[in-house]
Amino acid sequence: MTYRIGIINVTGFAGIEAARLLRNHPSARIVAATGRSLAGQQLGEAFPSLSVYGDLVISEQIDVEVDLVMSALPTAESAKACEPFVRAGVRTIDIAADFRLNDPADFERWMGKPHPAPDLLPHAVYGLPELNRQAIAASRLVANPGCYPAAAILALAPAFAGDLVENQVIVDAKSGISGAGRGTGGGFSYSEVNEDVSAYKVANHNHQPEMAQELGKLREGPPPRLTFVPHLVPMTRGIHATCFAPLRRDCSQAEVDQSYREFYRDAPFTRVAGAPPHTKHTLGNNMCLVHPVVDRRNGMLVAIGVLDNLVKGAAGQAIENMNLMLGLPQDAGLDLAAVYP
Amino acid sequence: MTYRIGIINVTGFAGIEAARLLRNHPSARIVAATGRSLAGQQLGEAFPSLSVYGDLVISEQIDVEVDLVMSALPTAESAKACEPFVRAGVRTIDIAADFRLNDPADFERWMGKPHPAPDLLPHAVYGLPELNRQAIAASRLVANPGCYPAAAILALAPAFAGDLVENQVIVDAKSGISGAGRGTGGGFSYSEVNEDVSAYKVANHNHQPEMAQELGKLREGPPPRLTFVPHLVPMTRGIHATCFAPLRRDCSQAEVDQSYREFYRDAPFTRVAGAPPHTKHTLGNNMCLVHPVVDRRNGMLVAIGVLDNLVKGAAGQAIENMNLMLGLPQDAGLDLAAVYP
Amino acid sequence: MTYRIGIINVTGFAGIEAARLLRNHPSARIVAATGRSLAGQQLGEAFPSLSVYGDLVISEQIDVEVDLVMSALPTAESAKACEPFVRAGVRTIDIAADFRLNDPADFERWMGKPHPAPDLLPHAVYGLPELNRQAIAASRLVANPGCYPAAAILALAPAFAGDLVENQVIVDAKSGISGAGRGTGGGFSYSEVNEDVSAYKVANHNHQPEMAQELGKLREGPPPRLTFVPHLVPMTRGIHATCFAPLRRDCSQAEVDQSYREFYRDAPFTRVAGAPPHTKHTLGNNMCLVHPVVDRRNGMLVAIGVLDNLVKGAAGQAIENMNLMLGLPQDAGLDLAAVYP
Amino acid sequence: MTYRIGIINVTGFAGIEAARLLRNHPSARIVAATGRSLAGQQLGEAFPSLSVYGDLVISEQIDVEVDLVMSALPTAESAKACEPFVRAGVRTIDIAADFRLNDPADFERWMGKPHPAPDLLPHAVYGLPELNRQAIAASRLVANPGCYPAAAILALAPAFAGDLVENQVIVDAKSGISGAGRGTGGGFSYSEVNEDVSAYKVANHNHQPEMAQELGKLREGPPPRLTFVPHLVPMTRGIHATCFAPLRRDCSQAEVDQSYREFYRDAPFTRVAGAPPHTKHTLGNNMCLVHPVVDRRNGMLVAIGVLDNLVKGAAGQAIENMNLMLGLPQDAGLDLAAVYP
Repeated sequence: MTYRIGIINVTGFAGIEAARLLRNHPSARIVAATGRSLAGQQLGEAFPSLSVYGDLVISEQIDVEVDLVMSALPTAESAKACEPFVRAGVRTIDIAADFRLNDPADFERWMGKPHPAPDLLPHAVYGLPELNRQAIAASRLVANPGCYPAAAILALAPAFAGDLVENQVIVDAKSGISGAGRGTGGGFSYSEVNEDVSAYKVANHNHQPEMAQELGKLREGPPPRLTFVPHLVPMTRGIHATCFAPLRRDCSQAEVDQSYREFYRDAPFTRVAGAPPHTKHTLGNNMCLVHPVVDRRNGMLVAIGVLDNLVKGAAGQAIENMNLMLGLPQDAGLDLAAVYP
Repeated sequence: MTYRIGIINVTGFAGIEAARLLRNHPSARIVAATGRSLAGQQLGEAFPSLSVYGDLVISEQIDVEVDLVMSALPTAESAKACEPFVRAGVRTIDIAADFRLNDPADFERWMGKPHPAPDLLPHAVYGLPELNRQAIAASRLVANPGCYPAAAILALAPAFAGDLVENQVIVDAKSGISGAGRGTGGGFSYSEVNEDVSAYKVANHNHQPEMAQELGKLREGPPPRLTFVPHLVPMTRGIHATCFAPLRRDCSQAEVDQSYREFYRDAPFTRVAGAPPHTKHTLGNNMCLVHPVVDRRNGMLVAIGVLDNLVKGAAGQAIENMNLMLGLPQDAGLDLAAVYP
Repeated sequence: MTYRIGIINVTGFAGIEAARLLRNHPSARIVAATGRSLAGQQLGEAFPSLSVYGDLVISEQIDVEVDLVMSALPTAESAKACEPFVRAGVRTIDIAADFRLNDPADFERWMGKPHPAPDLLPHAVYGLPELNRQAIAASRLVANPGCYPAAAILALAPAFAGDLVENQVIVDAKSGISGAGRGTGGGFSYSEVNEDVSAYKVANHNHQPEMAQELGKLREGPPPRLTFVPHLVPMTRGIHATCFAPLRRDCSQAEVDQSYREFYRDAPFTRVAGAPPHTKHTLGNNMCLVHPVVDRRNGMLVAIGVLDNLVKGAAGQAIENMNLMLGLPQDAGLDLAAVYP
Repeated sequence: MTYRIGIINVTGFAGIEAARLLRNHPSARIVAATGRSLAGQQLGEAFPSLSVYGDLVISEQIDVEVDLVMSALPTAESAKACEPFVRAGVRTIDIAADFRLNDPADFERWMGKPHPAPDLLPHAVYGLPELNRQAIAASRLVANPGCYPAAAILALAPAFAGDLVENQVIVDAKSGISGAGRGTGGGFSYSEVNEDVSAYKVANHNHQPEMAQELGKLREGPPPRLTFVPHLVPMTRGIHATCFAPLRRDCSQAEVDQSYREFYRDAPFTRVAGAPPHTKHTLGNNMCLVHPVVDRRNGMLVAIGVLDNLVKGAAGQAIENMNLMLGLPQDAGLDLAAVYP
């Protein structure tokens, strides 16, 4: 059986990546792909990298029967586009940030506008299978994690679940430029970004509450105090999250390694690396590599997580969630080597 | 049925790429992969990008039964490694340059050493399916094209086959750095190569005779006089060949476009682009995009060919040849979108 | 004595670079710098790389006395802005393309609009000191060469002046992205340009007639037939022009080298390199490195020229011209090492 | 008067950069430059970027009279080479790490070998003029700071001097690849480093004790507990240090800004930026841009410092120290705009 998938807004980077990855799925097929500005064009003409899609035409709306929709629209627009599908009982994955924060007040505080469909929030499951596999499989509405949170939460989850660290965290993340999206304006031209590193939205990025919320669920008590500083580095894809948290007690490196390996034993897409991982080792595939280091001199845990922001940080994660929601093998279509070099 | 494939020298960039691509092949599977320096290590440990290969161990020799071998050894070493397989009747694809030149004297002139197995040369087929599909399918020994020649020949083939141009050609090619191979010494460090373009082996690169030889076979008469200048540009993958040849007669753009489209009508992996193609539109997939432009002011044909040097210029091309040799669909395992952005 | 310099449109890349270089000039100083969109801002605030300029404020107009103006406005706008200064007898350097083509009909054909001040064209000198040093020194209006023509003309000039080549030329040029200018729209974002090479305006770029015109002046007869194909490569600065012309007679490499060295004996900023030059060897300084190679097999001259498009291809060239016009040493303020690595 | 400068090991990146910068110094001139592997070659031949140095020949030893030497040799070798000059009373600047740690036991612990000249350590001054201007001016032996410590210390110094933060610090630094030096072996080839971010020597890099030692001197009490994680990002030059320290008390952003501006009021090369600074804004010049951010939600100070690792992080800093030691204006030869874009 082949499931029929609809992509809402195939024309952003996450949408293009979903189309790339779904091309190789054994049991799913794009039957409709929307994109207002390019509606009417063939997908392979609009995006020559997708020329293997013979005659699929970008449409204004999804007007055929689908088994599941993924939305890659911008924040707030996405919830509006998802809403009719969710209400109609169609399985829905929101790649945007609209259903990630449980409290609509948090959404309004961080996004600067009221949530378009707050009554749906209680039905949304946070789509990180390493934490929520069963809930995702049972859900009709999945909130796909943000790219930064995916890396940071996977780097820190075993430490929180194992109660190894204090409740205060620093996340210093480095992202490739594709995280800024397609067709974005000033500041992302090649000449400006090449040979440059800069921080932005210092301690004020809207992915911060999502990290704190999800890490907080891994043990008793309030969510951690979390300072998040994102940086842009001159590469197209990849996120490297370096996380710091004081250890609650004296732990050996071996002990921490062991608890990390145990935590991810059954996770097909998160591996504990024995050396500092490279973002390039995940380029184009759905892997997240994590690496905890005990700084005994200072009683600090340094936990690194790396992934491809467009795959495990967006479209690949969405397909992994899709697989779970449709009862398919978790790694269907995603058993890919990374593109190297 | 699943064919058993052996990779000789999996540890170079072409070998790593063959492993990446074969991971997704529906009917072929790597059963042995050699690599002297890393023998004994697991493939996924030696190359974290290949960690999806659970427990495949790099070996010194291919010592299991195989249906086909691909060799990615350096020039001259490769012929020696291929020889026993060819003589034993095992289908063999040489990704190196050892079986491309028909005349062993040409090999010696350009490679600086005598050919290790000249009696095999008459049995080798040049592995560019756009020109030699049937001969490849019938062959036991395929010489996989060089990355530069693949781009240049595909850019110019319709013009030669259609006798549109004079017998003198300029090929100005720009290559990503991965063409220089893995573990190469001085001159390829990041700090030296970044923000730099330079030419090398000006009019003296050993891919030149291969281009002239194969273009020469497309019409009567001697091979063309061909000046080839390769350049290194600061990117990892991709080749952009810009080819110039004087037009034999006054041709319109439409006429040339038409003859190009006709020539490649049945080729699954070469497309005629309606605008100057980008190397990035082929990153990671087996596509070659060609684009002819008639410069009527000067009576000159400018023909562009772009591809990923490690895919259509090496490992992907090898798998396409493998498919033909094994009677599989030509695009088995290769129906891939490019990685974009 | 310190000359007072006015910069028209300091806010483009060429203007920013002129400000950078003039900071170190022993005998010239910026007294006014215009830029409509940023007028009123301090230069060092608008462009933090220029923070050494304490309190210079970007103005709408040049309303102080100046000894020389440089305009870095876009084509056609520039001529209009230069006109009053030229008519008032103020030395003027146009970094744009407005005074390069001698025939106003050529301007209209290639720029798509009529020339704003055709009566000034006969007074303009083409500002390449390697060819026109004395005329530049005597001139009140200098047309600064385009970045591509500077590289190509310097690569080929000795061959034309020495009548070594036929009158047909191919120029295949590779440029960094800063050539596209600041604040340009679609197609130049980092994610699109990184890991990509593409050609544009194939055989149709408006720098082509300038090359043919100036090379044509170096010997009797008509200007050469010249096919020009520019390419964008993923780096910020640098141009690599690879030029091809059939040799008129059998020349040895030594003979060609000799005539090149002779031609540039007194040129402080053009050197004949003994090996293929790297664009990175000129990053940030005013040098052009040229390298001729005789391809005897095919009777072809391959002539390479490399430079920094914003220095010898724009602002540095303008300052070199300024020095000549003001009677200063030709290399005043320009005796700089390149930035390496 | 022109001072005579000797460079020990001009052939590494710091040495090349010192040569570039000294070319424009009004009162200093290189009279000897050593480099064993390239001794006998002209500097401008060995490094085409330095071709403005006409006939300066790289030597084995400094065998002419000099007023000051700078050594850019590797750790431990450098102290040996500096020793005779120091003992002879020649002003000496060590760009390596040999005289930075006050306690020879610290040197041995972090460098893995005994200090070659421990009796000289008490005479060495840490060469950060923002902290030690007068001591540097009076010294005969200056230990030039490491590139990472320069950025981190300048980012945090006002907070320590003003006692704003607790005594525990995290420094997450991102460096361009030139920090790894020239001619380094495996792991720094373009194909491996491009499109990649990775951490290395996590919480174990030998620049850590230098940071803690110097920050500790800025107030009473022991040096801070400091966790340092360096990362490599795909660019050639630039360091971005993001530092985190808990605030001792509730501070407003304005208060912190004020104390930073006050602290650096007289520093010609360190500026407090009003927005997150870009490494590219310091490319090629001696500027350090710092930017403190108060994260009031978490009581955390985030302090950013950016600079060019080869200029303010190495050769430019050495020239600034040279100026002070020779009684020249602190910014002689260094009043440069950054190269942008």
